[in-house]
Amino acid sequence: MSVSISTIRPIAAPHRPGFTDGVLPAACPSRTVLDHVTSKWGVLVLLALADGTHRWGELRRVVEGISEKMLAQTLRTLEKDGIVLRTAYPEIPPRVEYGLTDRGRALNEHLLPLMGWIDDNAAEIVAR
Amino acid sequence: MSVSISTIRPIAAPHRPGFTDGVLPAACPSRTVLDHVTSKWGVLVLLALADGTHRWGELRRVVEGISEKMLAQTLRTLEKDGIVLRTAYPEIPPRVEYGLTDRGRALNEHLLPLMGWIDDNAAEIVAR
Repeated sequence: MSVSISTIRPIAAPHRPGFTDGVLPAACPSRTVLDHVTSKWGVLVLLALADGTHRWGELRRVVEGISEKMLAQTLRTLEKDGIVLRTAYPEIPPRVEYGLTDRGRALNEHLLPLMGWIDDNAAEIVAR
Repeated sequence: MSVSISTIRPIAAPHRPGFTDGVLPAACPSRTVLDHVTSKWGVLVLLALADGTHRWGELRRVVEGISEKMLAQTLRTLEKDGIVLRTAYPEIPPRVEYGLTDRGRALNEHLLPLMGWIDDNAAEIVAR
């Protein structure tokens, strides 16, 4: 295989906790975070926030197909993880905006290239 | 927001088919491929294959918690997508190995940095 050791080291190095026996042991915190950020709606919400803050209604529109319930649940999970920041402005009528935290932007720096690759290759893959 | 236009262009550029109105419209092939490669088990199988080919039993062991059924289904989906290559050697007893195709390796080049970030940050995120 042509994958270099330096490429795989960040996830396979035996000195890292959680990676000594197998790939992401079931009890590993990485599995939990993986579930959150690569959930169907988690990825799409993170992509939607890549270009700036959005209000609830905007997220509902751009993340086509997401239900009110799943949007609420996804935002709550990502907010709890310190990835999404919810800001409520004391205005009348009240205005609430959702954006990325520094951690969320750092995450997106790794997520966007993956999504770019998927977008570039999806048509060919699905056509197989 | 500090995300630069050049960073988000690959997924938000309006000239790309499928991204003209919203993030990954529901009918977009990218959504299908996203589901395949970021499924709970899809990611873990891709990680397991990052260091080379594996036999069925090895995958069952290193992808801790995966059932026979889910491993079969995940491998079949990734094989159909041209990401995983199944090679059956005409030996007695028969030997079957699973590895990454060129496309699978290209995908992993984007997936591994994301997983590295998740691994680096998971403990802190889960502890919040």
